[in-house]
Amino acid sequence: MRNFIYHAPTRILFGKNKVNELGAEVIKHGSKVLLAYGSHSIKESGLYEKVVKILANSNIPFVELSGILPNPKIASVRQGIDLCRKHNVDFILAVGGGSVIDCVKAIAAGVSYNGDVWDFMIRKAKVVNPLPFGTILTLAATGSEMNGNAVISNPELFDKRAMGDASLQPCFSILDPTLTFTVNRWQTAAGAADIMSHIFEQYFTPDEGAFVQDAIAESILKTAIKFGPIAVSQPDNYEARANLMWASSLALNGLTVTGKAGGDWATHDMEHQLSAVNDMTHGAGLAILFPHWMNYVLNEITAPKFAQVARNVWNVVENDDVIAAKEGIKQTRLFFNSLDLPNSLSSQGFGEEHILDMAKKACLFGPIGALKKLNAEDVAIILRNAL
Amino acid sequence: MRNFIYHAPTRILFGKNKVNELGAEVIKHGSKVLLAYGSHSIKESGLYEKVVKILANSNIPFVELSGILPNPKIASVRQGIDLCRKHNVDFILAVGGGSVIDCVKAIAAGVSYNGDVWDFMIRKAKVVNPLPFGTILTLAATGSEMNGNAVISNPELFDKRAMGDASLQPCFSILDPTLTFTVNRWQTAAGAADIMSHIFEQYFTPDEGAFVQDAIAESILKTAIKFGPIAVSQPDNYEARANLMWASSLALNGLTVTGKAGGDWATHDMEHQLSAVNDMTHGAGLAILFPHWMNYVLNEITAPKFAQVARNVWNVVENDDVIAAKEGIKQTRLFFNSLDLPNSLSSQGFGEEHILDMAKKACLFGPIGALKKLNAEDVAIILRNAL
Repeated sequence: MRNFIYHAPTRILFGKNKVNELGAEVIKHGSKVLLAYGSHSIKESGLYEKVVKILANSNIPFVELSGILPNPKIASVRQGIDLCRKHNVDFILAVGGGSVIDCVKAIAAGVSYNGDVWDFMIRKAKVVNPLPFGTILTLAATGSEMNGNAVISNPELFDKRAMGDASLQPCFSILDPTLTFTVNRWQTAAGAADIMSHIFEQYFTPDEGAFVQDAIAESILKTAIKFGPIAVSQPDNYEARANLMWASSLALNGLTVTGKAGGDWATHDMEHQLSAVNDMTHGAGLAILFPHWMNYVLNEITAPKFAQVARNVWNVVENDDVIAAKEGIKQTRLFFNSLDLPNSLSSQGFGEEHILDMAKKACLFGPIGALKKLNAEDVAIILRNAL
Repeated sequence: MRNFIYHAPTRILFGKNKVNELGAEVIKHGSKVLLAYGSHSIKESGLYEKVVKILANSNIPFVELSGILPNPKIASVRQGIDLCRKHNVDFILAVGGGSVIDCVKAIAAGVSYNGDVWDFMIRKAKVVNPLPFGTILTLAATGSEMNGNAVISNPELFDKRAMGDASLQPCFSILDPTLTFTVNRWQTAAGAADIMSHIFEQYFTPDEGAFVQDAIAESILKTAIKFGPIAVSQPDNYEARANLMWASSLALNGLTVTGKAGGDWATHDMEHQLSAVNDMTHGAGLAILFPHWMNYVLNEITAPKFAQVARNVWNVVENDDVIAAKEGIKQTRLFFNSLDLPNSLSSQGFGEEHILDMAKKACLFGPIGALKKLNAEDVAIILRNAL
C-alpha cells in the first residue's frame, strides 16, 4: 500500500426531505448565493420552487445561472464567473447532477483567477482560494458531489477535459433519493454504468497491497449490479435509488484509490473524446468502451486482477485466471446490455472517420492509462474494436 | 435505508514517515500544544524524540501529559484539563492508541466546561466548543483516530462509559503502519478483534436496506480476517499492518452505520463492565463475549443476518439460515482462538460473584442492544455463559 492523504470533508445530508436543511447549511458558508442548475426538470419536479422558498425564508439573496447542459460547456462556466463577480457572490449552490456540479466547481475555481478558466483544464493554472459551494444532487452517477474533480467541455475545440483540486470539494451535499425517482431509464442505466466505471478505473491498476480498498470497491460494484436493474425497472424503489445514490458518492470520494498510485482512467480519457464529438451520455459511452478496453489490456500479467473481480463480484467459478477474466468481461458486457445501454460506437453515430482524431486528442499529454500504458495507436485500435 | 448525516472530516495522513508532516498540520490549528501520551513505549521506539524535535523545529511550544493508561482513567482527563487551562493550550496532540486518543477527546471537551468532566459520560453535559486536536496512531484497533467517540474509565465508581460528539473528530490523524511493528502479539490480536467487533456492532442491527453499508462492512471483516493472523505471526509485515490500520479507521468512522438507526453495541456495553472490573484489554474482552452474544440473540428472526455474514465472509455453504448462522458463529470463535485470544471469562479472573453487578451496571440506562433488547437478566445469562 502506498502512502496517501485521505480527506473527504463534505458533509453529506442523506435522505427524504433533507433539502429542508438547506438554509441552515448555506448560512454557515455564505451570504450571497449563485443558484446554478440545468434545465426545466427541477422546475417540473417542484425542487426549484422549494429551494427558492428556503433561500427566501433564510434571507439569503441569490442570483441564477440556468441552462447548464450535460457535458457542461465552458461558456456556462464563464457566464457563472461573470455573475459571481458582478454580484459579489460568496457561495454557490449547485442543484442537479454531475454536470451542474462540475460546472459549479470550475466557476468556484475561476472567480479568483485572472486568466481564462479553460487554463485549469489544460493544466496552465492551479486552483487557489475557490469559492465555497454546496450541492443538491438529482442524479446518482458521477460522484462529483463528494470529490474535488470536474470535467468541462469546450465545443469550439471539440475537447473535454478534467480538472481537480482537494479544495474543490463541496462544503455539503444533500442526497435525497426521491429526487432521482423521475430520472428516466436511460439516465438511470447510464448512471449505474458510470458508478461501475469509476470503480473499474480505480480497481484495475498495477498497485498491490491495497486489499481493503479493493474489497470496498467490490462492495460498491455489487451494489450497482444489484440495484441498477431494480432502479431501471422500478423508478420509485427507494432502497434501489438510495443504495445507488450513496454508492455513487463512495465510488469516487477517494476511498477506493487511496494507497494506489492513482487510477487507470484510460477509458475515461477515451470517453471524453466521444462526448466531445457528439455530446453523448457519459455513462453510456463508458458502457460501450469498458469491455473493449478490458479485452485489449488483458494479458498474462493483468489476468489475475480481472479474474479477481470475476470471482468476487460476478461469481465466476474458474481456476484459470485468463478464462475467469474473459468470463468476467463477458458478464460486464451482458450486464450493460441488460440495462439497454448501447454496445457499439456505430450505433451512436461514430464511424471510422472519427477514430484517429479522437485517439490523438485522448493522448494529447502523452500515453494514457496505468494498468497498461496506451498510446494513440492503442487507443485507435480499442475505438475501432468498439465501432 | 434511513436518513443520515455522514461527516468524517478528519484529514488522514497515511504511510511511512508521514510523521514528518506533523509540524505543518499542527500549525494550521494551534500555537500551544498539550502533548499527550501513554507510557515509555513511544520513548523506546524513538517516536517521542521525533515528535518533540518536529514541534521544536516548527517553533510550537508544548506541555506534556504522560502516563495515560489503557482504559484511560478519568484522573488523566482531569489532569489534562488542568494543564490546558494553566498553560493556555489551544491544540492537543495525542500520540498513542485509542486510550490516549479517547483521553484527549475528553480533555478537549472538558476544557471549556465548568462542571466535572465525568458529567459527559453520564449524559449530564453536552460538548460545546471543544479544543481542536490531532493524533499520531500507534495501534490499529479502536478507530478513535477517525471519529468523535471516547470511552473513559472511572475506577472509583468501577465504571467505564462512552461519550461522543461530531465536534470531537480529530483535525488530522497520522497513520504510519511501521509505528505498529512493535505492537506485541496479544495487542495485535486484540486489535483485530476490536476492529471486527466494531463491524459486528454496526452490522447486526434490525435495519434493512443499507446494502452498500453492509457490503463495505463485510469487506472490512475480510480484511481483518486476512491480515490479523499475518500481523500476529509477522509483526513487521507492512501490508498486513497497513491494511489493519486503515481498516481500523474505516470500521468506525460512520461508513458502516449510516442509513441505520445505530449500532447494536450491547456487547461493548457488557465489555466495558469487564474492563472496569479488572482493566482487561478491550479487544480481548470483546473476543470472549461476541460469540456468546451471537448465540444468545440468534433466533428465526435474526438468523438471516447471521447467515449472510457466514456466507459472505466465512464462505459457509449452507442453505438453512439457522445452520449457516451457527457455523458462522463457530468460525468467529475459532478465528479468535487462532489468534490466541482468550475464550472464557474465568480464564481472566472473573467468577460468578461479578456477574450480577456487571449486568446491572451494563443496563444502568435501561435495556441495551438493538438487534435484541437485553435487560440485566439477559446480560447476566450471556456473561454466565461466557464464564
